[in-house]
Amino acid sequence: MSRSCLAVILAAGDSTRMKSSMSKVLHPVAGRPMIAHVMAAIASTGVSEAALVVGRDAEAVARAGAVEGVSVETFLQTERLGTGHAVLMAKQAIARSYDDVLIAYGDVPLVTSAPFAAAREKLAQGADVVVIGFRTEKPTGYGRLLVENDELIAIREEKDATEEERKITWCNSGLMAIDGRKALSFLEKINNHNAKGEYYLTDIVEIARAAGGRVVAVDAPETEVAGCNNRAELAFLEKLWQERRRHELMVSGVTMIAPETVFLSYDTKIGQDALIEPNVVFGPGVAVETGAVIHAFSHLEGAHVSAGATVGPFARLRPGADLSAGAKVGNFCEVKNGKIGEGAKVNHLTYIGDAVIGAHANIGAGTITCNYDGVNKHETRIGANTFIGSNSALVAPVSIGDGAYVASGSVITENVPADALAFGRARQEVKLERAKVIRERALAFKAAKKATK
Amino acid sequence: MSRSCLAVILAAGDSTRMKSSMSKVLHPVAGRPMIAHVMAAIASTGVSEAALVVGRDAEAVARAGAVEGVSVETFLQTERLGTGHAVLMAKQAIARSYDDVLIAYGDVPLVTSAPFAAAREKLAQGADVVVIGFRTEKPTGYGRLLVENDELIAIREEKDATEEERKITWCNSGLMAIDGRKALSFLEKINNHNAKGEYYLTDIVEIARAAGGRVVAVDAPETEVAGCNNRAELAFLEKLWQERRRHELMVSGVTMIAPETVFLSYDTKIGQDALIEPNVVFGPGVAVETGAVIHAFSHLEGAHVSAGATVGPFARLRPGADLSAGAKVGNFCEVKNGKIGEGAKVNHLTYIGDAVIGAHANIGAGTITCNYDGVNKHETRIGANTFIGSNSALVAPVSIGDGAYVASGSVITENVPADALAFGRARQEVKLERAKVIRERALAFKAAKKATK
Amino acid sequence: MSRSCLAVILAAGDSTRMKSSMSKVLHPVAGRPMIAHVMAAIASTGVSEAALVVGRDAEAVARAGAVEGVSVETFLQTERLGTGHAVLMAKQAIARSYDDVLIAYGDVPLVTSAPFAAAREKLAQGADVVVIGFRTEKPTGYGRLLVENDELIAIREEKDATEEERKITWCNSGLMAIDGRKALSFLEKINNHNAKGEYYLTDIVEIARAAGGRVVAVDAPETEVAGCNNRAELAFLEKLWQERRRHELMVSGVTMIAPETVFLSYDTKIGQDALIEPNVVFGPGVAVETGAVIHAFSHLEGAHVSAGATVGPFARLRPGADLSAGAKVGNFCEVKNGKIGEGAKVNHLTYIGDAVIGAHANIGAGTITCNYDGVNKHETRIGANTFIGSNSALVAPVSIGDGAYVASGSVITENVPADALAFGRARQEVKLERAKVIRERALAFKAAKKATK
Repeated sequence: MSRSCLAVILAAGDSTRMKSSMSKVLHPVAGRPMIAHVMAAIASTGVSEAALVVGRDAEAVARAGAVEGVSVETFLQTERLGTGHAVLMAKQAIARSYDDVLIAYGDVPLVTSAPFAAAREKLAQGADVVVIGFRTEKPTGYGRLLVENDELIAIREEKDATEEERKITWCNSGLMAIDGRKALSFLEKINNHNAKGEYYLTDIVEIARAAGGRVVAVDAPETEVAGCNNRAELAFLEKLWQERRRHELMVSGVTMIAPETVFLSYDTKIGQDALIEPNVVFGPGVAVETGAVIHAFSHLEGAHVSAGATVGPFARLRPGADLSAGAKVGNFCEVKNGKIGEGAKVNHLTYIGDAVIGAHANIGAGTITCNYDGVNKHETRIGANTFIGSNSALVAPVSIGDGAYVASGSVITENVPADALAFGRARQEVKLERAKVIRERALAFKAAKKATK
Repeated sequence: MSRSCLAVILAAGDSTRMKSSMSKVLHPVAGRPMIAHVMAAIASTGVSEAALVVGRDAEAVARAGAVEGVSVETFLQTERLGTGHAVLMAKQAIARSYDDVLIAYGDVPLVTSAPFAAAREKLAQGADVVVIGFRTEKPTGYGRLLVENDELIAIREEKDATEEERKITWCNSGLMAIDGRKALSFLEKINNHNAKGEYYLTDIVEIARAAGGRVVAVDAPETEVAGCNNRAELAFLEKLWQERRRHELMVSGVTMIAPETVFLSYDTKIGQDALIEPNVVFGPGVAVETGAVIHAFSHLEGAHVSAGATVGPFARLRPGADLSAGAKVGNFCEVKNGKIGEGAKVNHLTYIGDAVIGAHANIGAGTITCNYDGVNKHETRIGANTFIGSNSALVAPVSIGDGAYVASGSVITENVPADALAFGRARQEVKLERAKVIRERALAFKAAKKATK
Repeated sequence: MSRSCLAVILAAGDSTRMKSSMSKVLHPVAGRPMIAHVMAAIASTGVSEAALVVGRDAEAVARAGAVEGVSVETFLQTERLGTGHAVLMAKQAIARSYDDVLIAYGDVPLVTSAPFAAAREKLAQGADVVVIGFRTEKPTGYGRLLVENDELIAIREEKDATEEERKITWCNSGLMAIDGRKALSFLEKINNHNAKGEYYLTDIVEIARAAGGRVVAVDAPETEVAGCNNRAELAFLEKLWQERRRHELMVSGVTMIAPETVFLSYDTKIGQDALIEPNVVFGPGVAVETGAVIHAFSHLEGAHVSAGATVGPFARLRPGADLSAGAKVGNFCEVKNGKIGEGAKVNHLTYIGDAVIGAHANIGAGTITCNYDGVNKHETRIGANTFIGSNSALVAPVSIGDGAYVASGSVITENVPADALAFGRARQEVKLERAKVIRERALAFKAAKKATK
């Protein structure tokens, strides 16, 4: 669309019902602050300028709202006098006479570009104000859209509605588009002559019509315009978001045995024919490629899983975990900033941190890369085709050459050459019949303890 | 309320459809036997005397029903002749002429004080019998409440109801309040002249009215009066309980990303601004304070998590786990009877049992406190600012002084002074080219094995 | 039933909407390919001969469809010309003149024997064609069953239906039974004179009636005849299957606190009074006996859990895990091909592979059986009443005698006699004040690193 456009995003609410130490719009959905979701929707509509009206936590909200593709000006709202008043905080920006002005809300994070695009299309066709409505089975409490001859003649508040009007199921979402050259004049006509003494943005419908303007409504799915007033509603938004994204992934060829137990982040990428078992949590920054398998009870964040690799059950991939093709990370294993080579296996009870593991290495159960000295992190390099015996500790910085073998239970503190055998463990000793003595002593201790009680 | 009151709780059912080796009312909801939930609701209504009618597992039921604030007399029911007969098992108690008598059921665990209080209020206003009803969209099978001029004129059983009466959606929950001075005379008039030859408590409506008494009904939410006949219904009660409690916590300021995957116990306490990620199970006795984070896949029981502490993912806190402010217990870690000091970190693959860990200690991956000698449990003390190297075993009783350092892979059996370095591990040795020999030997073994097959 | 019967199963679809690298009917539900579910339903109906019409992945589909009790002939379909054409691929089998011919679909895996049995009963009573229908609240898109005087007079496709007919909620499932001696003549009369140029099996209704035959419909629950076109629908089938099976288990006496979080396989067996906590995944081949407890976050596959044994939380039992009565496998433990003796405890952070553990043994936290040498797997035998100290590595093949004691942190490479004490660890050494030196060195390293940046 070649028309210029400004999006005004209201994000200054007090949000007391959230009972939160931070602004409502900073609360994340799918691992991303709500305000960032809204901004991303704005960006995907092709709008590149936004006026962000902020209140509480202004700086943090502005930072969270900085999304690629949109240049954001922030306007501080210090009083709460209603939505009409809030929009006018951005007066300076609106005054620049854009073709289109969009009104969005920081706590409506599931919105997509579609209703904004539809509303702008109506502006392009000559409408002065476009209200974005939604159809609902439970309209109680919402303003109803009163339409005649394809024009929106009023938004009727619940309390003012007749019994007949209350049956209307097309409701006002609050989202709106306004002819940018008329927006300021309309907005400045909104007054606070009402019971609550607030400036209502919805009055713009009457104002535009009184000025001979044309007001219409377009439609958005109810789920896209859902807002959030407390944390139960926040959880509901999360649920709607998750359901939408899981469905997209499934129809694109991802298998989820129990999709309702898979939690995705806003940027999770999963390739076709990947299998995601029940109970998998994806933090931000994960890419899973074609045909990879994520077994049950896995937790991934900032990780890359190549084609044909398998993860879990009970695996945790932390940022910088990078599994090559066919690699395996199994139960009770944690990988952080670690590259696992092609076909390498990290199968049980292992911590890999700040390490590079070569192709086809076998890391025994209970192996720990000791990457931390209490102050600094150091790197471990494990060569291709190595065998690290179980319960070994590799004290970084250290390097194990290709084809080397580390005996079980070893503590490795110095580099191991390729094809060498390294061990660092004591020889086994046996004391015959001594277990009996130990047992008797333990039982005596117990008896003594009891006696002194 | 200054009126005296006795609660009669029926808990003697055979509960054959539970297919259980124990009485139905002992089955827990939210980690607490159903009978204890009912007793707690009685107690919170301000009723301090209860007559518990028990049958199967009488002693265990009586024990489980012993809840703070209520003094309980138990009465053994040996025959099952109907609810009217069951209530009369407590004749001796009822005969003491309380002002009010409440009838409750051991398998209706979600009941709250509200309907009992409402029913007692009606008694105080002069009603003789008060039936607690519920509104439902699926009344089929329930007795319908027939009301005229605010009086309950009958409870109509499904089979006796006209087509018109079957449309009534106000149903009998079974819960009831009776004028305590008339209760015995009413109850003793119930007969078993019916098809099943049982004594039906519901006959009391007619009996009271025939005696010129006033019978009314009050309302309870359907979910509060739901009972349980098999384990599918038990799971449904659990689900209702969990939904109710999760919602309470969320609106009080707790964030749950996926509330349907968080399982609470009857006594779980969570502070404002705490974050509970998906898939967290709370056993009994857990308190989580303000701003703490419980990551996904965590299991807590009998644990205390201070403000700003973080748990998980994949952490298990067992009874006696006590995390100080800012402490961290991470993946694949178990803490039992262990105090984790301020800002201390237990991040990976660690078992802490019977231990006290000082502030800002760093416990390396794979550390085990060896607290058990096969007979006794012993204590480990780890000082502040210590560094315990990975894969160490601390054999209790043992103490590590403040600021001490334990080398990775050590077995520590003696106390370590403050600021000392301790190690207990063999020096590393390397045999060049030996890995090849080992590999060839293993391959030869494999070949030999195959050959003998 | 003494009548002969052939089941024709259509499993040749391209299933492009699955976006899958394998045939749709190979996708599993409850851990078993859909085609195998269908075959098992056929077998349980007492039908022992099946004609499997395959296309893509023909061999794999035939292999997956080989279920006990049914002898399967496969027929390759190379063109997709409609269901009528697909059935005729099995012409050679149908021509053998069975009494009954059943038509089923490889992507309708929740079907049970009931509707097939009902349909065959109708054939036995003289019907020529029996259509299996289902009642639904959302009939849109399905062919409606038009019935007059107990005869099915037509299957009306959505697009051809009158407004009145669209209100019909009895729909065509596609499943069918045909008089086996007339089947071929009916099928060969189906033509492709329609908009899409396809051969529709549903035309058989008219064909049979035109030939003076009797066509009737029988009923199946909607959930049993649900099919699958994409992976979202596959997940829905899985959900329906799980709900059905969980309910069966609960009413049979198994407690599930949160059944919606328990994932069963097609062959999972759980005994009465077993307790399954939230978030448990059962892979194929698991049997859990009476009174066993599976704690939250457990993953079982190919495992046997005896009466009174307990598993988890956070335990993984892999194929060959066999827990004797009263045995315990606790958090962050993995058992593979391992027998855990009566009352033995494997409580924390342990890997047991290819091992036999005697009764009442106590395996300390962090114990690893080192069963793999990089090429071969070896066995570990641990006697009764042994005590294996924490963080020990037992290098297989190795055997620990009854009553023996292994000191914490030992690497055991040679057999330990009964009642002996074995240790393989270095003596602890302490360097006073050395921790300070280490810390200063680490801080200096950090400072140097910063300086060079």
